[in-house]
Amino acid sequence: MGSQGEEENMAAWLLGVNNLKILPFKLPPLGPHDARIRMKAVGICGSDVHYLKEMKLADFVVTEPMVIGHECAGVVEEVGAEVKHLVPGDRVAIEPGISCWRCNLCKEGRYNLCPEMKFFATPPVHGSLANQIVHPADLCFKLPENVSLEEGAMCEPLSVGVHACRRANVGPETNVLVMGAGPIGLVTLLAARAFGSPRIVIVDVDDHRLSVAKQLGADETVKVSTNVNDVGAEVELIKAAMGASVDIALDCAGFSKTMSTALGATCSGGKVCLVGMGHTEMTVPLAPAAVREVDVVGIFRYKNTWPLCIEFLQSGKIDVKPLITHRFGFSQKEVEDAFETSARGGAAIKVMFNL
Amino acid sequence: MGSQGEEENMAAWLLGVNNLKILPFKLPPLGPHDARIRMKAVGICGSDVHYLKEMKLADFVVTEPMVIGHECAGVVEEVGAEVKHLVPGDRVAIEPGISCWRCNLCKEGRYNLCPEMKFFATPPVHGSLANQIVHPADLCFKLPENVSLEEGAMCEPLSVGVHACRRANVGPETNVLVMGAGPIGLVTLLAARAFGSPRIVIVDVDDHRLSVAKQLGADETVKVSTNVNDVGAEVELIKAAMGASVDIALDCAGFSKTMSTALGATCSGGKVCLVGMGHTEMTVPLAPAAVREVDVVGIFRYKNTWPLCIEFLQSGKIDVKPLITHRFGFSQKEVEDAFETSARGGAAIKVMFNL
Amino acid sequence: MGSQGEEENMAAWLLGVNNLKILPFKLPPLGPHDARIRMKAVGICGSDVHYLKEMKLADFVVTEPMVIGHECAGVVEEVGAEVKHLVPGDRVAIEPGISCWRCNLCKEGRYNLCPEMKFFATPPVHGSLANQIVHPADLCFKLPENVSLEEGAMCEPLSVGVHACRRANVGPETNVLVMGAGPIGLVTLLAARAFGSPRIVIVDVDDHRLSVAKQLGADETVKVSTNVNDVGAEVELIKAAMGASVDIALDCAGFSKTMSTALGATCSGGKVCLVGMGHTEMTVPLAPAAVREVDVVGIFRYKNTWPLCIEFLQSGKIDVKPLITHRFGFSQKEVEDAFETSARGGAAIKVMFNL
Amino acid sequence: MGSQGEEENMAAWLLGVNNLKILPFKLPPLGPHDARIRMKAVGICGSDVHYLKEMKLADFVVTEPMVIGHECAGVVEEVGAEVKHLVPGDRVAIEPGISCWRCNLCKEGRYNLCPEMKFFATPPVHGSLANQIVHPADLCFKLPENVSLEEGAMCEPLSVGVHACRRANVGPETNVLVMGAGPIGLVTLLAARAFGSPRIVIVDVDDHRLSVAKQLGADETVKVSTNVNDVGAEVELIKAAMGASVDIALDCAGFSKTMSTALGATCSGGKVCLVGMGHTEMTVPLAPAAVREVDVVGIFRYKNTWPLCIEFLQSGKIDVKPLITHRFGFSQKEVEDAFETSARGGAAIKVMFNL
Repeated sequence: MGSQGEEENMAAWLLGVNNLKILPFKLPPLGPHDARIRMKAVGICGSDVHYLKEMKLADFVVTEPMVIGHECAGVVEEVGAEVKHLVPGDRVAIEPGISCWRCNLCKEGRYNLCPEMKFFATPPVHGSLANQIVHPADLCFKLPENVSLEEGAMCEPLSVGVHACRRANVGPETNVLVMGAGPIGLVTLLAARAFGSPRIVIVDVDDHRLSVAKQLGADETVKVSTNVNDVGAEVELIKAAMGASVDIALDCAGFSKTMSTALGATCSGGKVCLVGMGHTEMTVPLAPAAVREVDVVGIFRYKNTWPLCIEFLQSGKIDVKPLITHRFGFSQKEVEDAFETSARGGAAIKVMFNL
Repeated sequence: MGSQGEEENMAAWLLGVNNLKILPFKLPPLGPHDARIRMKAVGICGSDVHYLKEMKLADFVVTEPMVIGHECAGVVEEVGAEVKHLVPGDRVAIEPGISCWRCNLCKEGRYNLCPEMKFFATPPVHGSLANQIVHPADLCFKLPENVSLEEGAMCEPLSVGVHACRRANVGPETNVLVMGAGPIGLVTLLAARAFGSPRIVIVDVDDHRLSVAKQLGADETVKVSTNVNDVGAEVELIKAAMGASVDIALDCAGFSKTMSTALGATCSGGKVCLVGMGHTEMTVPLAPAAVREVDVVGIFRYKNTWPLCIEFLQSGKIDVKPLITHRFGFSQKEVEDAFETSARGGAAIKVMFNL
Repeated sequence: MGSQGEEENMAAWLLGVNNLKILPFKLPPLGPHDARIRMKAVGICGSDVHYLKEMKLADFVVTEPMVIGHECAGVVEEVGAEVKHLVPGDRVAIEPGISCWRCNLCKEGRYNLCPEMKFFATPPVHGSLANQIVHPADLCFKLPENVSLEEGAMCEPLSVGVHACRRANVGPETNVLVMGAGPIGLVTLLAARAFGSPRIVIVDVDDHRLSVAKQLGADETVKVSTNVNDVGAEVELIKAAMGASVDIALDCAGFSKTMSTALGATCSGGKVCLVGMGHTEMTVPLAPAAVREVDVVGIFRYKNTWPLCIEFLQSGKIDVKPLITHRFGFSQKEVEDAFETSARGGAAIKVMFNL
Repeated sequence: MGSQGEEENMAAWLLGVNNLKILPFKLPPLGPHDARIRMKAVGICGSDVHYLKEMKLADFVVTEPMVIGHECAGVVEEVGAEVKHLVPGDRVAIEPGISCWRCNLCKEGRYNLCPEMKFFATPPVHGSLANQIVHPADLCFKLPENVSLEEGAMCEPLSVGVHACRRANVGPETNVLVMGAGPIGLVTLLAARAFGSPRIVIVDVDDHRLSVAKQLGADETVKVSTNVNDVGAEVELIKAAMGASVDIALDCAGFSKTMSTALGATCSGGKVCLVGMGHTEMTVPLAPAAVREVDVVGIFRYKNTWPLCIEFLQSGKIDVKPLITHRFGFSQKEVEDAFETSARGGAAIKVMFNL
């Protein structure tokens, strides 16, 4: 393995539906602006499970064997000649997407929308559930002493919540409604609090999730049904639970019903951010929201979020540790068990590998 | 009639479905910040026709006789003691809505969303199709010499286009798609051009409307069907007609199909503004647009638009005169004929009363 | 006294230099949108002292006897016929300025810049150091149970800090430098923390002030000189104390030296907000800041700040109580002593009347 | 010479004060994302003259021989393997600065502030007054048929005006004051018009420059002195010439006096953009402007401006041809004469090389 020492670098390869195998993974050469990282913590995301179960997600199809995983942190082993901000031994959280920096979107600061984006474990790009990876050093963010590697890996899902809060302008003057208390709903709740939202109501169909949300700091929870005819009544329940204007709704479920509720509950001049992706086509009361100038903004992943996530973790404004409910090692059996645990849901929020 | 002289002030009263009568209209007293205006030009809006045909519009119901009309300009007859910017004889265009200036939305500069708004001919507030009206002087905008009273009345519909362009950030760097070439689509086209849009494509189902749009300055027109299955193909036609990115779509129709087309055609990071109100509930591919961060903004009327509209008319950046296709006097018969002409549509774009 | 009962309403009148007398103050009639308030807490501002000592401030000159005071809170005694959000007995904090709502600036949401503004104790408008006042009810903000009337009066100076933070875009991603640890510097520090700034360095020439700032939550303090030749060295001290980029500087002193330091310390692409008004004409290195796109924003008072201030106080995000160092009653002698105490400075931060 | 053919590539080297020599210039290898361009039009900028006369500019010092020139356009000779948007023979305008795309400022879309920027003819980076250069292809923008190579080279100075207009938010609602009618003042005037400014007043000390500005479309011109005591009177002259609010001032001179005039003339809530760099330290009435919330923004070069400049040229919204007053070939003598002509000023606005 040359500069990586004697060991052979192993990774979790997605070979087919429900077929994940630990096999050797040859690292690319280390460029002058790259870092070689020994992975220490890798989380499982819903999209990883989706690829395992269906070999595709939206328009992305896995046609060749692909290393999986993209929520990760590790320790620097080696850096390229031009890298100045890292040295071997540094603990780093890793931003998974490499954009082109040549298109208009990159140059205008919206690199998350880059059409040439190369993103861990989005086919055909390999992921990061491996002993080691090589990655641009500017996407490796040094962790302070009081932030663990597992917390570092959590910067990835947390980034989704942070990006949603930024796009919706969450701040100390905006009461927030979060639709959905799954993993993304929960990190979004944490992010909204860290952005200073004075009052947050969270909504779900599941009592357990709501109780977790309450423990994580939601001011009020509202249990709802899946029946679209209940939208009107549930909007009233939500408004009552808020006891003030719902300035921003962050829909972390993304169904016709959740979006209809979000549009109905949000005050005139407010914003709805569509975070979750339940339905592709939605039937929603868009015109009544539009005439109240309730704007709808979407998100795609995130940009420039790692430094802020690390600040939130370091300062204690956000504590992601309660979200990590299960931990596994990096053997063939444990990898299979971990994905099964994540797929089952239930009490599992975030399933984490310790490599 | 005291200070209004010997004449009796007459107005067009909406008394019931298809029942519009010219009857006396007693003016309120002139407050210190008010102006009394002799109406000279009043246009008919689609909403006026709607009230005449159904006695209601959305949640607004006409339950008492109401003076109709809200697109207007006239000549100042008298001003209150505190009014400094107007003198009798001044020709003025009139902004129809009076907001409360006590609520948060007013104070934050979004007075168009004021829940206490009193707006001409929105029940129970009387409109302006009358010989004279009394109105806050700060909502009466002096016309320069080279802008006619009819053009002054056109500031009202034009304001809708201007507000849409502002909310969507139309400018010299944004190619614009306009969905719908009715009266609002056409003023929006004119506004987008005046805001500097380099390239504008307009879409409609009607050849005549499209030819008018072309004469008014659209770069390209695309004829579409009403069949929702054609969305995919029509998005491609629109992109080809634009020959560049569709940065902003202004949907002046507001149907599921037009909105689906707008969402599909707009580039990543772009904006769709919902201007028209065809459907209340819409079935649209919201998620695929959201993941490309195509934002949806709505509008409600307008705010702070009269000075800009007047500047556009004075400078010649916008010529609204071709939109005025029919003119009528203010007799009982002519009022009925005018509304009938407007309701028929066809070649009629804007029907104007000369009082 | 009619509706105000049998008592005579007394107020503190500024009659000449160092000549402040408690004399009767006749209340204006209560309009339909007004409230009559019994004052309970009134703070002394530096501008009040300035008027007392010089009978003028900037371009404003006191030419007629004028009631002084503008930082205030009280209890509602009576409300006008149209007032719905208040009832007698409500405890309220009072926003002192009444803008015209007819000019462009008001309509665009920048009412603090209204040229027709009528502001407490800015000549020729009377202030609020009185037993009772009449004021527009929409400028009277109900206090929650856990916020005292003194804290309510503190909303006025705190509003300056809040408005500065808003204009400079302080948030969880911006490290803040505060120049000056006087009363405005301290409320600005508190506001910056409440807006989520992760790291705040404050600078002053006085050790006591800096120790107060430290107790109030500043992360680091830097003691500086008044010698303009020290700017370069002090910029380096400040950067070292921050240990990260200075993203925003809030200059609460407003001298050539403090502004030069702020411009030099702020990172490329950052912002400097000029809050204090020490020098009118300043000699500053503007070009080197401009080529790094360090923008300079100013503030005039505040707008729409009371609800947010009250939220910060209610939630405990801000505690203004340590700033209230001295309290006085409303007798002739105590009024004189109170102003003398405020003028002396030293340990006095905020001097408060309890009426 | 390998792929560049038999010829030897020649460039204009700055060797010392007033010492410019045409000598061979070895091209770097063509990377996969690069283009090799045959230069056809190169303009002389004030900064080029400054380097020639002093071997330094601000903090940048020429310590090694350096090829000069950065306003340029040419024809593509060869492209790297990954370049898709260009083919040999394409005519292109060239953006001169290469930023790192790894720092925060680059990633946030403010790449012009990148501390690692490599910019043509800013030491130690070579410029573009050469037969051929190699440059990243994404910084080479294809010219449409109706835009000449000389106009392509003018995109560089025009970009300064465009960036200033963007930072100051010039648009159809903002009257603009331009301080200074030199080359940058004139391109800024053209840009402000193209951004839709309804009324532009331009100020200078020189009658000839003002007459050129008038021909280029300024609505009014005001001749001023260099005496700082005249600021008050000249502010009144400027306001009278505008006849409306001065919403934005673009100071293209950058002296204490011009900046004082700009700050005094701009309306409450307006913006002043510091474009020119006459004085480093300035003595200006900053506080009176700050309390009217007149903000000061600076600029450093530009970002993302070439596509817009090309659109302005192609559409005819801007005509830069009248600015090109002198043309020279690329011989030793002509290079010397060209720089002498540019340095003399007078009737020379833009001096252009045709290679």
